Amino acid sequence: MTMILNPETDLELVRHLKAPPAKVWRCWTEPALLEQWFAPKPVVTRDVKIDLRPGGIFATTMDIPGMDSQTGAGCILEVVPERRLVWTDLLGPGYHPAADSFGMTAFILLEPEGTGTLYRAIALHRTPDQRKSHEDMGFHDGWGTAAAQLDAVAATL
Amino acid sequence: MTMILNPETDLELVRHLKAPPAKVWRCWTEPALLEQWFAPKPVVTRDVKIDLRPGGIFATTMDIPGMDSQTGAGCILEVVPERRLVWTDLLGPGYHPAADSFGMTAFILLEPEGTGTLYRAIALHRTPDQRKSHEDMGFHDGWGTAAAQLDAVAATL
Repeated sequence: MTMILNPETDLELVRHLKAPPAKVWRCWTEPALLEQWFAPKPVVTRDVKIDLRPGGIFATTMDIPGMDSQTGAGCILEVVPERRLVWTDLLGPGYHPAADSFGMTAFILLEPEGTGTLYRAIALHRTPDQRKSHEDMGFHDGWGTAAAQLDAVAATL
Repeated sequence: MTMILNPETDLELVRHLKAPPAKVWRCWTEPALLEQWFAPKPVVTRDVKIDLRPGGIFATTMDIPGMDSQTGAGCILEVVPERRLVWTDLLGPGYHPAADSFGMTAFILLEPEGTGTLYRAIALHRTPDQRKSHEDMGFHDGWGTAAAQLDAVAATL
């Protein structure tokens, strides 16, 4: 499916990963693997819960040196194995509106490319201000570093 | 699927409708039918758009006498024909976070009951305050009146 972005509110990271879609998919959907790459080091990701179905939980806790831990429990919206994972933090498990949220829907899109993967990680936001805020927080560097960590973990599989 | 509600944040309307699930489903999913019953009269519902798939639009405009029109474009989350429709206004079409929302996920659950339907309309909210606000706005009367209007429209099919 073609994904049309709104440049006012959306951010996109594109990377060419060495690992094939099957391994990238495992890194995104198996908690023990996701914990190894999800946040740029030295941030530690733990207590990951993934129930891989629409309405299922997608939860992470991140320990950020010098800051409080951040726990979020989002909701998975779409699952197309090895191709497409969609989740949001505006909803929690069972589609229950989250009391508090960053306010983002994420699309992870994988396409085979040679022996590797064309990797697209897309973040949709409520407003242009929120897109800019996420960009200023370091979206491109942060998600880019995480994508390189993901590819390194995938290489061990 | 058993649906476990959180009484702190959720509201539920249960009705026994005369129409069978197939007709109730049509009233919920065909725009020309939904416009006839969706809001308690004299509120007029118009410009309904329904793309009946996960990620599809669920949009309504309501003309409320003495007030501004209210337009909302929500997102359909789950579709099980004649049994289960889930949508939220926290997201718009394509799961894009809505810039502004009431902040609700709705479950419409239909079960055959004799020649009619056991009808459950459930609203999940972010917080207890928002549940109470929705209740104070007249959730039970409003959704109850709409359910009776729905059954009257279904009787014409």
